[in-house]
Amino acid sequence: MSAPPSAHPPAHPPVQSPTHTPLAGGPTGPPALRPLLGTVLTALTTGASDRPGPLPAGGPARTTAQLNKAAQPLFPDTGTGPHEALRTLVHALAAGAADPAHPHCAAHLHCPPLAVAVAADLAASALNPSMDSWDQAPAASALEEALTRTLAAEVFPQAPHPDTLITTGGTESNQLALLLAREKHGGPVQLVVGANAHHSLTRAAWLLGLPEPVVVPAPNGTLDLAALDEALTHLHHPLLVAATAGTTDTGQIDPLPDIADLCQQHDADLHIDAAYGGPLLLSPAHRHLLHGLDRAHTITLDLHKLGWQPVAAGILAVADSTALRPLAHQADYLNADDDTDAGIPDLLGRSLRTTRRPDALKIAVTLKSLGRDGFAELLERTLAAARLLADRIEKHPGLELYDRPTLTTVLFRPTDATDDDVAHLRRTLLTEGRAVLGRTHAAGRLWLKATLLNPHTTPEDLDALLDLTCTHHTPAHPERPHHR
Amino acid sequence: MSAPPSAHPPAHPPVQSPTHTPLAGGPTGPPALRPLLGTVLTALTTGASDRPGPLPAGGPARTTAQLNKAAQPLFPDTGTGPHEALRTLVHALAAGAADPAHPHCAAHLHCPPLAVAVAADLAASALNPSMDSWDQAPAASALEEALTRTLAAEVFPQAPHPDTLITTGGTESNQLALLLAREKHGGPVQLVVGANAHHSLTRAAWLLGLPEPVVVPAPNGTLDLAALDEALTHLHHPLLVAATAGTTDTGQIDPLPDIADLCQQHDADLHIDAAYGGPLLLSPAHRHLLHGLDRAHTITLDLHKLGWQPVAAGILAVADSTALRPLAHQADYLNADDDTDAGIPDLLGRSLRTTRRPDALKIAVTLKSLGRDGFAELLERTLAAARLLADRIEKHPGLELYDRPTLTTVLFRPTDATDDDVAHLRRTLLTEGRAVLGRTHAAGRLWLKATLLNPHTTPEDLDALLDLTCTHHTPAHPERPHHR
Repeated sequence: MSAPPSAHPPAHPPVQSPTHTPLAGGPTGPPALRPLLGTVLTALTTGASDRPGPLPAGGPARTTAQLNKAAQPLFPDTGTGPHEALRTLVHALAAGAADPAHPHCAAHLHCPPLAVAVAADLAASALNPSMDSWDQAPAASALEEALTRTLAAEVFPQAPHPDTLITTGGTESNQLALLLAREKHGGPVQLVVGANAHHSLTRAAWLLGLPEPVVVPAPNGTLDLAALDEALTHLHHPLLVAATAGTTDTGQIDPLPDIADLCQQHDADLHIDAAYGGPLLLSPAHRHLLHGLDRAHTITLDLHKLGWQPVAAGILAVADSTALRPLAHQADYLNADDDTDAGIPDLLGRSLRTTRRPDALKIAVTLKSLGRDGFAELLERTLAAARLLADRIEKHPGLELYDRPTLTTVLFRPTDATDDDVAHLRRTLLTEGRAVLGRTHAAGRLWLKATLLNPHTTPEDLDALLDLTCTHHTPAHPERPHHR
Repeated sequence: MSAPPSAHPPAHPPVQSPTHTPLAGGPTGPPALRPLLGTVLTALTTGASDRPGPLPAGGPARTTAQLNKAAQPLFPDTGTGPHEALRTLVHALAAGAADPAHPHCAAHLHCPPLAVAVAADLAASALNPSMDSWDQAPAASALEEALTRTLAAEVFPQAPHPDTLITTGGTESNQLALLLAREKHGGPVQLVVGANAHHSLTRAAWLLGLPEPVVVPAPNGTLDLAALDEALTHLHHPLLVAATAGTTDTGQIDPLPDIADLCQQHDADLHIDAAYGGPLLLSPAHRHLLHGLDRAHTITLDLHKLGWQPVAAGILAVADSTALRPLAHQADYLNADDDTDAGIPDLLGRSLRTTRRPDALKIAVTLKSLGRDGFAELLERTLAAARLLADRIEKHPGLELYDRPTLTTVLFRPTDATDDDVAHLRRTLLTEGRAVLGRTHAAGRLWLKATLLNPHTTPEDLDALLDLTCTHHTPAHPERPHHR
């Protein structure tokens, strides 16, 4: 049924005019953005208030149904206009979020971003510089250079020519480290990793066409030195050892100085995945935990973990900038020789990506805003929360603590629980929308994992989290056919 | 000199209180964000007004000096607080931007993002979902699924089980396509590319440890069919041909149906890099230019080019979802078998990255806001601007047009210019802050390249761009020692 002809203007005016599809940049960008951002903030508020806790109740089926109800049709013939699209989809996203700003959202290395970092990230989106050539990012490339120089000096204070690259996260940093080792040695390098290392290292070896990594046991959560020594004695060179400063499962730190000694003795390169623990460098109180870090050739860091950045804020640090030479790359439209000779910076060798968002901006704004004192303070608060949680668990008659935390990961379980009970309890908390906890196998058993990354978590929040855990634990549950 | 003791409260209050380092999420996030976003919008405005045109005057040296003046110290002992950090750094970034929203910023596939997409992206930053597990992104993962299903049906309307992945851009999409081909054939696949193909394909072969690609000539800007036939006849299998729908240099589209025929005859797989041209699928008026596209096994698309998204918004489409099986990946903390059996979605096989930003949100909000009509309208406007620019150049006595544009890339040069003059002219426009134009070698000569991506560019803007070009061209310039 078609609409009757009418003298009135159409309800949906055509979008021909720029005022109906404004751009984010230029002088008209900010006034166009302002009301849209207002709609977003309102939708974030209404969405969060729809959630009973850190995530929606009802589990995957209900969340997906709610999302689709709001989202469909995703691509209508006639658009809804920006406010309606933002209102419905942002509300649905917020209502269905596992919000890391909620103190009971503590499963993963999934941090609550600081408001200042998120605000800075808006400018990156609006100006949309692309980091693959100077003429797409004149100031943004200079800012990235200033930031990467600053970070390199923090990570390798003794090295004459350190450097850092900005990446999409620890996974890409690990990938790049392995690639640089492959290219340095001009062929298949043998990766040696602990059983406690992040899965992305093994995946990177596969991606890069390298031999299957040799896995050294880590029976107590850190790489076993005798086993590493043994492995390095018998393997063919070239060798790259990857150690971990802050494991995903327990937050432990490998014995870095000893590993560095073994690498030196056996002429193996050393990479350290400090995606989680790396920011402790900025804490005068805890820096000692990373002793030996700067003996690595390459280091993975990641400020979207213990750095409160929105994704992505990965970093790869290299002790010597010449290690980055294999990334040098020529594409005439981006870095023609005569342009480079004429002084136009060549940015292509700073990433394997081509178009690239200026993630440096939010990091730089955060560092400048907080300063060293402010950043260290956030670190201390977060680490203190983890220690306090461990204290409370140790004193709790119904709970067992795996070990004192090194970083901010605390493993625990109800004393009378089976592994199935622990897995079930975690899923119950998730599907009822009450808490987001992780899971880890350690010492032959399954544990609940709290990865605390919220610097504003209070003692009351931690008590409430433990209460929730105890309340929802139904010991020695027999069969649960509806869940298996 | 230390400050004298004082009974007044300290000028820099300690940051212990959450109110000094607010988070972006939760119920307190939006009120904390609001004033910070105000500061960002003001800094974007003042920064843009500092620029004389689409980019700063003075070239790299001056831009870098200005940026450093604003940015340093980047990591002070005591922080500046959020407003000061945002004000200084966002202003510097805007003042030193090559702003794609300015109609004279037209060098690259570097689009001006829509305000609605940028506003949506703020919500992604604030909620910070991570796409590697359901319990970090309950609604965001459902939204990504809805979007990728929608896009897959657009790209492969006839295929029973198409799928798409969200990537960081065309480069990662091309990399993934090559990886999937390698894994499908269980070993070194021989990549065959046109001389007109994007450099990321060759780089991907290097990354993945594959043989050096065979390069087929593209003397007229598109892949030569006879040469491709010849190459496919003599090369060893397995073979992957990569064709291009929208080349970076000229925006031309390879003869897709003929290439698909040759691939079929020679039992070669077909990948099409449609990073630039792909969105024409959504234009009823221009869809025919992509005839044959859906005969590919894999297709690269990229909505941060002709889709007005802030970076990143890459897509890889596969004709058959089983092609994605090699990406299946297990990490117990993210997708334990018993959790997957209990109905918790497993997201790890959707990317090579682990932590991943929900770029699906801004894309989905844009599609819903614009609808098909609105999106097609923006495409038509942008393509019309390119045709109009070509018209103007054809009629201009002082300018030569390379060819009529297929997409939105227009190559031209002053009639009496040498190649050195053209390169010099481009750099002059850049360093004076007047226009951002690209460069391309074609038909043995160097051309200025205008890549039009701004749907609101007016005829007057185009005339002014040509005037600028003519005014700044100093013909038959002899030696320029200061530039070489």
